[in-house]
Amino acid sequence: MSDQKDILAANARFYSAFAESDLAAMEEIWAREAPVACIHPGWTAIAGRDAVLDSWRAIFDGPAAPRVRAFRPSAHLLGDVAFVTCYEAVGGGLLAATNLFVREGGVWLIAHHHAGPTAEAPPRDAPDGDGMIH
Amino acid sequence: MSDQKDILAANARFYSAFAESDLAAMEEIWAREAPVACIHPGWTAIAGRDAVLDSWRAIFDGPAAPRVRAFRPSAHLLGDVAFVTCYEAVGGGLLAATNLFVREGGVWLIAHHHAGPTAEAPPRDAPDGDGMIH
Repeated sequence: MSDQKDILAANARFYSAFAESDLAAMEEIWAREAPVACIHPGWTAIAGRDAVLDSWRAIFDGPAAPRVRAFRPSAHLLGDVAFVTCYEAVGGGLLAATNLFVREGGVWLIAHHHAGPTAEAPPRDAPDGDGMIH
Repeated sequence: MSDQKDILAANARFYSAFAESDLAAMEEIWAREAPVACIHPGWTAIAGRDAVLDSWRAIFDGPAAPRVRAFRPSAHLLGDVAFVTCYEAVGGGLLAATNLFVREGGVWLIAHHHAGPTAEAPPRDAPDGDGMIH
């Protein structure tokens, strides 16, 4: 399904920007028209495009920009909005993530990211979906 | 804004069902047409309406159904989809939550819930939004 593929590609672009600490790429992929928010692990919720991009700048500029590897993405389509659940291996820890995307001008852009620690790894027999992303 | 109010009311209904361990109410408020998913704190992602409702049944039937109090909800509208960020006080712990809603037949129903531990409380000077929910 093309939408599914496009959404997973948008999710992969997000993690590529994250893994490479690429703020310019982050600026490209966050929504411009939709309201934007972000819940980094252990942080309070951040609302607004500028504040969210500032938070990524702070993370990328920090003394230890985290290495991230995302896996087992699963995309769910709600018309011109979609959400992806996936897992993130970050600095030896495991996080579960929700990424919300919105279609603006025909392009899937991210409107919300929420990652939080999870104790449990995905079951071994779970399908890999589109596999590893970075 | 009426949509904002309706979305916050749907969020409140979700936490009311959660706080009261009311499975029938949970069945009412989860989306029927949209794809549904849920990431409970520390769990892997659950996909599909039946599996999500089974997870709530397991939580409600468990030896210690958690007491939950949600606060500081903030609603973000994306057409017929909306997401709410809020905080949950559960059993002495603090969680950050993302709840995704979709309008089906004119009613806002929940399509995705993600709650994960957060170390940080919302700042004291943050607005209370529509205040406490349970």
